[in-house]
Amino acid sequence: MSATQAKYDRLLRLSREATTLDSVGRLLHWDQETHMPPEGAPIRAQQTELIAGLVHKRRTSAAFRGALEELVDLESGKLHTADLSRAQRAALREWRRDFLLATRLPARWVKAFAAITSESVEVWRAAREHSDFAKFAPNLERLLDLWREKAELLGYARHPYDALLDEYEPGATVATLRPLFQGLRPPLVSLRSELAERPPAKRDFLNKRYPKEKQMAFGRELLTCTGFTDERGALDLTTHPFCTSLHPRDGRVTTRVSERDPMENFLAIMHEGGHYLYEANLPENHFGSPLCEAVSMAVHESQSRWWETLVGQSWPFWQYALPRLKQVFPSQLKEISLEAFYAAINAPRQTPIRIQADEVSYCLHIILRFELECGLLEGSIQVSDIPEAWNSHMKSLLGLTPANAAQGCLQDVHWSCGHMGYFPTYALGNLYAAQFFEAFAKAHPNWSERVAAGEFEFMRDWLHQQIHRYGRQYRSAELMRKVTGKVPSPNPYLAYLDAKYRG
Amino acid sequence: MSATQAKYDRLLRLSREATTLDSVGRLLHWDQETHMPPEGAPIRAQQTELIAGLVHKRRTSAAFRGALEELVDLESGKLHTADLSRAQRAALREWRRDFLLATRLPARWVKAFAAITSESVEVWRAAREHSDFAKFAPNLERLLDLWREKAELLGYARHPYDALLDEYEPGATVATLRPLFQGLRPPLVSLRSELAERPPAKRDFLNKRYPKEKQMAFGRELLTCTGFTDERGALDLTTHPFCTSLHPRDGRVTTRVSERDPMENFLAIMHEGGHYLYEANLPENHFGSPLCEAVSMAVHESQSRWWETLVGQSWPFWQYALPRLKQVFPSQLKEISLEAFYAAINAPRQTPIRIQADEVSYCLHIILRFELECGLLEGSIQVSDIPEAWNSHMKSLLGLTPANAAQGCLQDVHWSCGHMGYFPTYALGNLYAAQFFEAFAKAHPNWSERVAAGEFEFMRDWLHQQIHRYGRQYRSAELMRKVTGKVPSPNPYLAYLDAKYRG
Repeated sequence: MSATQAKYDRLLRLSREATTLDSVGRLLHWDQETHMPPEGAPIRAQQTELIAGLVHKRRTSAAFRGALEELVDLESGKLHTADLSRAQRAALREWRRDFLLATRLPARWVKAFAAITSESVEVWRAAREHSDFAKFAPNLERLLDLWREKAELLGYARHPYDALLDEYEPGATVATLRPLFQGLRPPLVSLRSELAERPPAKRDFLNKRYPKEKQMAFGRELLTCTGFTDERGALDLTTHPFCTSLHPRDGRVTTRVSERDPMENFLAIMHEGGHYLYEANLPENHFGSPLCEAVSMAVHESQSRWWETLVGQSWPFWQYALPRLKQVFPSQLKEISLEAFYAAINAPRQTPIRIQADEVSYCLHIILRFELECGLLEGSIQVSDIPEAWNSHMKSLLGLTPANAAQGCLQDVHWSCGHMGYFPTYALGNLYAAQFFEAFAKAHPNWSERVAAGEFEFMRDWLHQQIHRYGRQYRSAELMRKVTGKVPSPNPYLAYLDAKYRG
Repeated sequence: MSATQAKYDRLLRLSREATTLDSVGRLLHWDQETHMPPEGAPIRAQQTELIAGLVHKRRTSAAFRGALEELVDLESGKLHTADLSRAQRAALREWRRDFLLATRLPARWVKAFAAITSESVEVWRAAREHSDFAKFAPNLERLLDLWREKAELLGYARHPYDALLDEYEPGATVATLRPLFQGLRPPLVSLRSELAERPPAKRDFLNKRYPKEKQMAFGRELLTCTGFTDERGALDLTTHPFCTSLHPRDGRVTTRVSERDPMENFLAIMHEGGHYLYEANLPENHFGSPLCEAVSMAVHESQSRWWETLVGQSWPFWQYALPRLKQVFPSQLKEISLEAFYAAINAPRQTPIRIQADEVSYCLHIILRFELECGLLEGSIQVSDIPEAWNSHMKSLLGLTPANAAQGCLQDVHWSCGHMGYFPTYALGNLYAAQFFEAFAKAHPNWSERVAAGEFEFMRDWLHQQIHRYGRQYRSAELMRKVTGKVPSPNPYLAYLDAKYRG
């Protein structure tokens, strides 16, 4: 082994210990949401804090810094050696990024932020319950001060929001997002109002009773399409569906079951199954390095939306799946044609609630939040302006006025958890998914016939080959160029919606 | 706060961090047995090793040693101050004990032991599958060398086995166990052969089909009797039932369900429920100190056997529970009287398998293992003698000859896991349970009427007041004297069996 490889291995070993500890933290979180008894919460908070502290210590230790500096100049990012593979060079770029991010926030800031976020979720919950934004405003003021300080500490070239965006979507800036969102806005607003004029699709058969056990049995079939296996995964029930992964070979998916709304469960399963597949396909021989981690929140979201919407709400998928669904629920779906089913699951929903939005209006909900968050960071909007600003954006984007703050500016948990700059990744996820899918459809022009025949492996293989196997080797824009030959654009998404709803 | 209390608090803080980490390790273990997908095993081994290493590091650190030495002389055990409560003095005694145990084994020994045990379970499994003791013998030889070395490293006054016993049952020695077991042996052998002469009880109705879902519903009722609540506990299914506790407020119970043998499930639930209650009743304000830990394996086992046998196989309990069981399984138990049910669940079982043994012969299985383990340690028995020695003890104690080694000396996993000196705690558990119960019955002469009426809180309260709330404040023999006024004795157990089977 060369001296350089020995150095690289030492760095990987140190990093792998932190990643292994972090995976223990993810198990703590998974258990908290699935099986932990309620009174276990206080000790769970201590366990979580302890593990998170140990992870942070390892990722910022002098030993880790030393191992990193053996290979890369922390200041400039220049590598000290050429004796590294392309993937290893990318890993070092990402390790350096993570190290700088982890060490730029002083303990004082981290402590203040932890204190305010740990109290804010409860405050937000109470405020939402009473639909009273004023109750939450003081917490948001303090959070905003800390977000602004964070932006200064992390640094940015043009807009303070850039520093925060970058944490969730490396490389994203206000300057890159604004044109994407400006490109989306007019066509989406126009399509949304066009759809609102159409006669509503018949959906009542989806509100019959679909018993839980049978839903779960069919849900497992769906999960199999996304590559889930019991050998490498577990499925559980939670209030809010999610997916977490301890390792490519140990992924945990959760869903929720409402007996009067089976599609909520089925689409959640497809969504989380998409997240699961990404994590399961990461190259495990690099476990502990950025090469075995997902590129970004938005690329992750592109994988979940791929399976939830581009596949799970598509015509060919239900050509395959509806006959099976009818076998499980014969009385509920008697005489329901594929046409009727497809129309029902794609029926537009006029709602002020983001998580209930249809795929046409979803990005409009995000654009609203993006504008408000930018405004808050740059100071053009004050915290006290939020309720009014929210409603006026809602009116112009979605033609709606929320009944109250709970249905409006208090609907999301994100700010109270400390997330500022996260929302745009949801919209990017939709754009990326459509753009990736366009390339996939070009490579597999007969994809719809194959999906209609119940074939999914070729699709999973394509995702693996094109996206998953690289881990963080390429940042999202670079990955997009590599896979599609183009920079990220709103056009494939708009073309997809146009074909689906006007075609 | 006094200077002494500040020192005590510092020690407790250090210890609590180790205990919190250890509780994370227990969650890893629980998840491994309940929800982890099979391919998660390799990363789980790494997670477990990492956490165990961090726990060990904290429990043997210079900082911990220093904090301990501020209050107690490690050499002599003498306290440096009188300004401590009785409970705190006991905690220091136990902290010192744990520290000495943890630091007396050199890294070289720990490493060699970990290496051999990690391979031995697989070797044992294969040997048992082929019923071929010779396959396992070389591993057992190496284990025996390490156990002997461990005994020398830990030190002992009279018998090398004492050093190993002490780890599971502090204070137990060959000299204290032998008279107990000698007192048990003749009466048990005689009662066992007397029972073998009686006509067998009718048990066929217990082999009808008892559907899983209904078993679980009734199992939850049983668990409620032992004090389990969903607020502080979770119930899951595993191959081998167990109970683990992350904290008094977060206990995890598991059971297994065989549809043709419901009593296996119900008695496992009562057994694990007994372990659960003990942990749930430990004083949580002392979490992190020995005062919030169980006295010993044997006292723990006394709590599980209490609920499994003294309650769960008693007449008054089924006066209460049988009508409820019949509601759940009306067709299976139609026309089954309490007399018939009681006779069936207490029917003697002539079996060479310890875990299938009835409560009369169970201790005889343990005495066999105790004699062999003593002999191995002192060198009066060689590894190669085991199969023959096993069978000859089995013949004289139980009147049986196992069909093969798998049913004989290869039946237990314990040695391959590295446990030598563990088996006696099972027998002690039975003795302690009966002796505690005698005191309980004296305090509550009408206990059987109250249990028959479905009252259990007074029983749980008694256990809490007399045993659970003290944690490790008293060692088992001292606790026994405190609760019953007597040293541990085989007599209450023998009297209980005599009354039950001859009364």
